[in-house]
Amino acid sequence: MTQRLFCFVGGETGSWHINKMTVVAGMAIANVKKITMSAGHTIMPDDASWLLRGIISNERYASREEKELLVAKQPTLGRPEAVCAALIPIRKSMAWWSLSQDERRRVLEEHSKHIAIGLNYLPAIARRLHHCRDLGENEPFDFLTWFEYAPAHEADFNSLVAQLRASEEWKYVDREIDIRLVREPV
Amino acid sequence: MTQRLFCFVGGETGSWHINKMTVVAGMAIANVKKITMSAGHTIMPDDASWLLRGIISNERYASREEKELLVAKQPTLGRPEAVCAALIPIRKSMAWWSLSQDERRRVLEEHSKHIAIGLNYLPAIARRLHHCRDLGENEPFDFLTWFEYAPAHEADFNSLVAQLRASEEWKYVDREIDIRLVREPV
Repeated sequence: MTQRLFCFVGGETGSWHINKMTVVAGMAIANVKKITMSAGHTIMPDDASWLLRGIISNERYASREEKELLVAKQPTLGRPEAVCAALIPIRKSMAWWSLSQDERRRVLEEHSKHIAIGLNYLPAIARRLHHCRDLGENEPFDFLTWFEYAPAHEADFNSLVAQLRASEEWKYVDREIDIRLVREPV
Repeated sequence: MTQRLFCFVGGETGSWHINKMTVVAGMAIANVKKITMSAGHTIMPDDASWLLRGIISNERYASREEKELLVAKQPTLGRPEAVCAALIPIRKSMAWWSLSQDERRRVLEEHSKHIAIGLNYLPAIARRLHHCRDLGENEPFDFLTWFEYAPAHEADFNSLVAQLRASEEWKYVDREIDIRLVREPV
């Protein structure tokens, strides 16, 4: 069975070094030096500051046509040249979760072009979306998105997140942390 | 905050007595006498046989119009006359979860009339849907649905589940247990 659950541990050790952590909206999380990403359940080490968990799930909005385009263009994680990464935990408001499915789709894609914008940055920027909201009742975030890209595409990545943050969908984001990382040399 | 996580413990004790348990598809679960439903996290008692967990989440398919109809007609759980209940755990196939959102909506509603069929039985039959699939990687079911109705509506309930099981959507159900219960007199 494919691994679906992933953990991100923030602390003093890890294979990804944090260059910058920005609180875009809502409460901060503790400042740490490094992040370890691991598959499956993880116990938080004593010297770590936080552990965020998320699970890969079925797509909630993409149509068949959009899904085919994504699958055709999206790169895998772990490309040797993709030494830059970003971990962006976000939470959406109760107003978002109270919308019906057709209303959420309309905001996300017809108004905000979330899928179309993402497609513009493929295959440069690899992405994996983890869902947290239904892991339990007390998760601090609804989604954790992990991105990987080469240093030459950093400006593209900044442009991608800027476009999404300017969208109607982002009016429903009430907590967001933007964590930029570089892979530690082995 | 509203309680979202619920546990169903099957064992020798509980406020709901099992009248009949039918394996509709896939693997059985252990036969037990009674079920206890409780809100929040629960530790499985030593004398219990199984514990199923599920979380209430946002609607995945209903349009605004359908959602308004459901909200207007659906009764609450715990009505004094609704002494009959059913717990129906189901799992859907990988083929289902690999569909895109528009394809799943088409099968569920345009072809199978899942929401429309359910509306026909409101307000007689109360229903609460719990999601399990994204609680973790190893959940035995994807959904637990809990129904409550008065004895006079048992035939209606049988008709409701028969219609759903005959639908195109149910071709994607690869595990299903139908547990019928009556509330123990206090």
